[in-house]
Amino acid sequence: MPRVVVDVMLKPEILDPQGRAVMGAFTRLGVHGVADVRQGKRFEITLDGDATDEAIADLHRMAEELLSNPVIESYDLRVEE
Amino acid sequence: MPRVVVDVMLKPEILDPQGRAVMGAFTRLGVHGVADVRQGKRFEITLDGDATDEAIADLHRMAEELLSNPVIESYDLRVEE
Repeated sequence: MPRVVVDVMLKPEILDPQGRAVMGAFTRLGVHGVADVRQGKRFEITLDGDATDEAIADLHRMAEELLSNPVIESYDLRVEE
Repeated sequence: MPRVVVDVMLKPEILDPQGRAVMGAFTRLGVHGVADVRQGKRFEITLDGDATDEAIADLHRMAEELLSNPVIESYDLRVEE
């Protein structure tokens, strides 16, 4: 069954306190050489049937309206397998 | 600058209430043909320097100890660019 992956990340110009916190923890744990960390969400969507144009269009609509906040986030949608 | 992506997902045998909620919302919004939704985390880590074996080993350690909970989650780490 085809799988669609949607990655949702904060836009580059939006501050990411979660990513900052992770980066601070890296430093405290002795991991250096990291310039930046951004944290986002990943959705793995398994389809019942084929990844038709209509099914993908529906998921683009969901990614924009439900999975992300277009004011501060951008998403990447791709079909895998 | 090289970028390392770490995806953290719940293990397949662990129930995912967030994914379930998303799937329920899909159905209510008229999107059918979805068999399953799983929600996880995505980390984009930008390195200061090269993606040396040592830097990657450090990040594997962080992925296991800090970014994921190995009891219920698995992670995938890859170097991009």
